[in-house]
Amino acid sequence: MSTVVDAGALKTWATDVFARLGLREADAALVADTLVEADLRGVSSHGVQRMTGYARGLRSGSIIAQPEIEVVQDSGWALVVDGGRGMGQIAAQTGMRLALDRAAGGRHGAVAVRNSTHCGAMAYYAMQAVPRRAIGFAATNAGMNMMPTGGREKMVGNNPLAYAIPTGRDAPLVLDMATSVVAGGKLDVARLRGEQIPLGWALDKEGRPTTDPVAARQGALVPLGGPKGYGLAVVLDVLCGVLSGGRFGKGLGLPGSSHFFEVYQIEAFTPYDDFIARMGELVDQLHDCPPADGSTGVVLPGEPEHRLREQRLRAGLPLEPTLIGELNNLAASLEAPRVPGT
Amino acid sequence: MSTVVDAGALKTWATDVFARLGLREADAALVADTLVEADLRGVSSHGVQRMTGYARGLRSGSIIAQPEIEVVQDSGWALVVDGGRGMGQIAAQTGMRLALDRAAGGRHGAVAVRNSTHCGAMAYYAMQAVPRRAIGFAATNAGMNMMPTGGREKMVGNNPLAYAIPTGRDAPLVLDMATSVVAGGKLDVARLRGEQIPLGWALDKEGRPTTDPVAARQGALVPLGGPKGYGLAVVLDVLCGVLSGGRFGKGLGLPGSSHFFEVYQIEAFTPYDDFIARMGELVDQLHDCPPADGSTGVVLPGEPEHRLREQRLRAGLPLEPTLIGELNNLAASLEAPRVPGT
Repeated sequence: MSTVVDAGALKTWATDVFARLGLREADAALVADTLVEADLRGVSSHGVQRMTGYARGLRSGSIIAQPEIEVVQDSGWALVVDGGRGMGQIAAQTGMRLALDRAAGGRHGAVAVRNSTHCGAMAYYAMQAVPRRAIGFAATNAGMNMMPTGGREKMVGNNPLAYAIPTGRDAPLVLDMATSVVAGGKLDVARLRGEQIPLGWALDKEGRPTTDPVAARQGALVPLGGPKGYGLAVVLDVLCGVLSGGRFGKGLGLPGSSHFFEVYQIEAFTPYDDFIARMGELVDQLHDCPPADGSTGVVLPGEPEHRLREQRLRAGLPLEPTLIGELNNLAASLEAPRVPGT
Repeated sequence: MSTVVDAGALKTWATDVFARLGLREADAALVADTLVEADLRGVSSHGVQRMTGYARGLRSGSIIAQPEIEVVQDSGWALVVDGGRGMGQIAAQTGMRLALDRAAGGRHGAVAVRNSTHCGAMAYYAMQAVPRRAIGFAATNAGMNMMPTGGREKMVGNNPLAYAIPTGRDAPLVLDMATSVVAGGKLDVARLRGEQIPLGWALDKEGRPTTDPVAARQGALVPLGGPKGYGLAVVLDVLCGVLSGGRFGKGLGLPGSSHFFEVYQIEAFTPYDDFIARMGELVDQLHDCPPADGSTGVVLPGEPEHRLREQRLRAGLPLEPTLIGELNNLAASLEAPRVPGT
């Protein structure tokens, strides 16, 4: 039975935990915000369940608590940021902020970030463009979990990308997708339930299709649409890792990942109000689409996450008992208070 | 039995045909080049088999033979081009050339194109960035052939995107992919052979999965990865159609499509030679990946197309008898010579 927790109180609590783990206060608040925002949007794979893993990284020194973030290249519209191997959220937020700044006043900004670590859900960064009347793009490379099409060694991540686009409605258009058919977490769910997985989700360690979630976990995720997902993952690896001079390809066997952020001010192409009028028309068309059998209707990408966030901001965030136990153990080890309301 | 045709001679022949259809000489050569280049790369869906359809459009006036191409917005890095409802290749090439020009000298250019028509394979445009030491991006919206996830009316195209990235090797990294699981042409192939199609390729007109290629053709293509392909298709529709003020969504029920081109000069992020050294490392890693059972090894995205082009430039381009018949009928109707060597 889940316990329902207030999102604001959870952010404050998580900020305190990250500060006790050695982060600067503002950085602790940022990391807490990214995690709870992901939970609010129903993306629990990138929510507070990440805290125990992050704590392990900070304690072992594989993640540096107070990194030096450095701009190592600045061409006006294009920058490269070194994340100092701190928490990825700190480097990523620096990158996105710089892209937003450079795009201000009808321009465009692109920032490649290297020497970072896991930075949470990419939508968090892309969405910051929306109130700035801009289109946001964010991508990262991930640990190696896919085999290139035709290969049987993992050397590509299921690198995700996110776009966020203003609509003039309460929910912006937000697409946040990985380049694998399914996330790795779905294999674990099947394994815990003792179920087989559908053919097409994963390969065994020889690169053969498998329905066994254990063999799949030792193997690899299948790229979305085969060569399409493989190709897109490699392109994103180039934008993130190769452009920035950071880790890419098999280099990701060691800690340190890379990101890419981009902001396009809409006014540079078309008057903003005209753009919003057209986006409203597109949203209405999609909403008015007759539903397929068994469907409750068509939603804009990112709309269900937006609705869930609104509901959870009002009614609270459900957390599973196992997760609460883990979080309270982490808190106890830092002499921090328990998760609020538990 | 296919007839093998010299690619250069075929370009000259197709240029003559398009000139007879009323195009300006340079435009006729451009359109011929895009088509034969697609055939050389094995992308016959976007090759000379398009000529009879284009001729119908030109003769009916739905495509204007000598369009006025106009730059309707210019913000330095961002432009909007109106294609005058001419052949899409003319507007698209104008857009890509402007993006390349604006990106020269370590910068970035983005061009949205409206009031265009089918412009061929997107890789043709993206690849022009490679000799300019830049990363190229190209996208277009397409006729409505997909239902939004959960809907049963077609209102999204399987909008493709292309990236081209220099590698320092003979083959650049080129990804050119549609956002549907398979191209519509694969349904026709199955129908002609009297075969069923796999579940997951297409929906019938009620939005239900089908294995019947006839029902599928009356229905819709399935977006790549469900909501992922739907989401990506909508994002590309925004970059192309909404940003440019052109057709988008259900507006694509009428003639006129929109494109988006972008060029990123690599030097703005990192010294070009360093980038190329890292790309070489990435290519070597992928080539050295042990092959999966039954595979001949891992290739870089776009590498097979590059190899096929080299081979076909030397040995000639095979054309099917049915296609040759269609092309010769078109030529006869214009009092043009037959396809060379047929």
